Amino acid sequence: MTLTINAPRLWNNLMQIANIGGTPDGGCDRQALTDTDLSGRELFIDWCVQVGLKISYDAVGNMFARLDGQDNSLSPIVLGSHLDTQPTGGKYDGILGVLAGLEVVRCIREAGIKPNRPVEIANWMNEEGARFAPAMMGSGVYAGMLDLAQVRDAADKEGITVGQELDRHGYSGFADPTGKDIHAYLELHIEQGPVLEQTEKTIGVVTGAQGIRWYDVSIRGQEVHAGPFPMGMRRDPVAALPEIIAGVLEIGRTDEHARATIGQIDTCPGSRNVVPGQIEMSIDLRHPDEAVLTSMNERLEAILASVMDDHKGLKFDLNQIWHSPVVDFDAKLVKAVLNGALEHGCSHLNIISGAGHDALMVARKAPTTMIFIPCKDGLSHNPAESATPEHVGAGANVLLSATLELLN
Amino acid sequence: MTLTINAPRLWNNLMQIANIGGTPDGGCDRQALTDTDLSGRELFIDWCVQVGLKISYDAVGNMFARLDGQDNSLSPIVLGSHLDTQPTGGKYDGILGVLAGLEVVRCIREAGIKPNRPVEIANWMNEEGARFAPAMMGSGVYAGMLDLAQVRDAADKEGITVGQELDRHGYSGFADPTGKDIHAYLELHIEQGPVLEQTEKTIGVVTGAQGIRWYDVSIRGQEVHAGPFPMGMRRDPVAALPEIIAGVLEIGRTDEHARATIGQIDTCPGSRNVVPGQIEMSIDLRHPDEAVLTSMNERLEAILASVMDDHKGLKFDLNQIWHSPVVDFDAKLVKAVLNGALEHGCSHLNIISGAGHDALMVARKAPTTMIFIPCKDGLSHNPAESATPEHVGAGANVLLSATLELLN
Repeated sequence: MTLTINAPRLWNNLMQIANIGGTPDGGCDRQALTDTDLSGRELFIDWCVQVGLKISYDAVGNMFARLDGQDNSLSPIVLGSHLDTQPTGGKYDGILGVLAGLEVVRCIREAGIKPNRPVEIANWMNEEGARFAPAMMGSGVYAGMLDLAQVRDAADKEGITVGQELDRHGYSGFADPTGKDIHAYLELHIEQGPVLEQTEKTIGVVTGAQGIRWYDVSIRGQEVHAGPFPMGMRRDPVAALPEIIAGVLEIGRTDEHARATIGQIDTCPGSRNVVPGQIEMSIDLRHPDEAVLTSMNERLEAILASVMDDHKGLKFDLNQIWHSPVVDFDAKLVKAVLNGALEHGCSHLNIISGAGHDALMVARKAPTTMIFIPCKDGLSHNPAESATPEHVGAGANVLLSATLELLN
Repeated sequence: MTLTINAPRLWNNLMQIANIGGTPDGGCDRQALTDTDLSGRELFIDWCVQVGLKISYDAVGNMFARLDGQDNSLSPIVLGSHLDTQPTGGKYDGILGVLAGLEVVRCIREAGIKPNRPVEIANWMNEEGARFAPAMMGSGVYAGMLDLAQVRDAADKEGITVGQELDRHGYSGFADPTGKDIHAYLELHIEQGPVLEQTEKTIGVVTGAQGIRWYDVSIRGQEVHAGPFPMGMRRDPVAALPEIIAGVLEIGRTDEHARATIGQIDTCPGSRNVVPGQIEMSIDLRHPDEAVLTSMNERLEAILASVMDDHKGLKFDLNQIWHSPVVDFDAKLVKAVLNGALEHGCSHLNIISGAGHDALMVARKAPTTMIFIPCKDGLSHNPAESATPEHVGAGANVLLSATLELLN
């Protein structure tokens, strides 16, 4: 018999916690380590304690709710995500992964299953990075990608630091976050993209995450008056844009998984009757295969070299300012998610994560995967963020199945 | 015998008036109707009175210094420009045209010439538009292009109006500016462009001024995350830029007189990992032939129509926000300037004005032309604005010759 979660209970929990920091437009403002975030945590703790889970914390404010196993010396299976939101966030981003984890644990208890190892629900501190940068802070410290001392110095715009808030809430004395041992990590999340909705699939079997390379491009020419200066005497950086833009977007068509985005173009001084002296632009390249991403980088360098050749009067700088390598999720866990989708008769699609998630940090230390469900119009970080009760229930059922498979 | 001006005297006058509002970096700050502007006017009046000229004003603060002719019922030949500067202005822009006019009149007197009609020097109020917008204010009111009552309401950033300043300085009671009758108007000016310097010519014989069309272009797509959104599902306004930019710059290569400038490109929201939802850009098209400018406008409309066809997922707006028609200078006056360059053995070039000048306003009511001399690196509106004593002297000699020809 296939065990299923209590879908209405999970949905009611999602709606109930959304009232904490709820905004008139139906969104949520529960930024990390605020009093509102603490109220959200307390409600979650209440629910956990009601089913007999043990709550623990680490020194960066990550929290874990534990269902003991038959052998508590074994490392736990962890289900989780984050309860913090953007200032204009929605009801699902992060929250779904935590509350679905709780629902899975409830079902395991109610079914009378005594797991061989502990099962925990994780609420990672400050995934959003809205109040304190960078994002994925708690999971980043756990994974050793961020340093606790540095993270404690991060300040919000009013000058309050993470360290002050951790002290105020009593988290600072807890264990070193990097000491935690995780057997397997599973995170259910809304897709934050349009693919599942547009292909009418219920479950995204997430096989990994894109590698990302960020670049700054600077083009310097000569700032002159739009009237007197003949075209032939100009050193107009705008003239180099068509070749760069067309080339970059073409890199984005390398294959169906490639992405290329020019999010910022700034013309300086930005006056309508002045030929710009300088242009600054951003380039974001992504691919789930590190070798392909490397070749995309090489194509970008070749394009810039060619543009420089064609525009000898201009000066160019291409600086890669960030490189986040590809993350491949654990094959055994990915298979467990696929089996869960099959077991519950859910339509499904292999998919790549394009946004940042705690799972991308956790994956650096522990076997990890994610489950995606559709969200309306691919919209997220927005009060209009929306998912259906059917998809939420399906995602939690797949999480339950995968957890049970991993417990066997 | 060819009459010549006293070049060192003119140069000394230029350097002397530059001390009024002089800035430590060698520039000038003598904004319209300030006490500093008034001090500059007073020094100029002193010089005029020393050679027996009569000073008059109109109700917008334009001032005229008059050398009587044999028949004072005839309308005057007017030589002029403006004594006001940008806040970070130079020593030559405008000032040269006024002081060279004074030098020409001095020479006429010293040569014992009694002109058949009056010769006047004009100092037009607020050409720069730096303290009060718009620019070319005094000459604009004279030409009937601006309304005196509206101009009086223009306020500087401290809320002081042109009307208050005209009252304070005692100009408001003088004659209606539009009543003035001008037989011919000649303005000597630095080029504010690079053509004369780069072609090594001393005199620009200015045949007219560019017509200008200004446009706002708006491209609207869909703001989505740079990671999850597949390229094929995006409506990215950046994708339309190569075709628009390349097309606009190609319009600028219609012929050697055409100009096309994209001075502003704004990506909204302008975040490096967000596909812009919207792009706003400016387009500035110029040509000295109105028919060609019209055809450039048609080409721009055709480019936009083609881009719209190629990008059906995007919404485009093309709005012409300003059209300043071509100005053709008076053929007889242009010929007089050419003859002057020939008489003084100056290398010369026919040239089109690409910047705004009082002469462009005056030309709408009276026969008008301009004389350009080179300025270093085409630089203006800058403390580093620079012209050589040789070029200043040559320009004033050509102004003298042209004036004498027009008096015959």
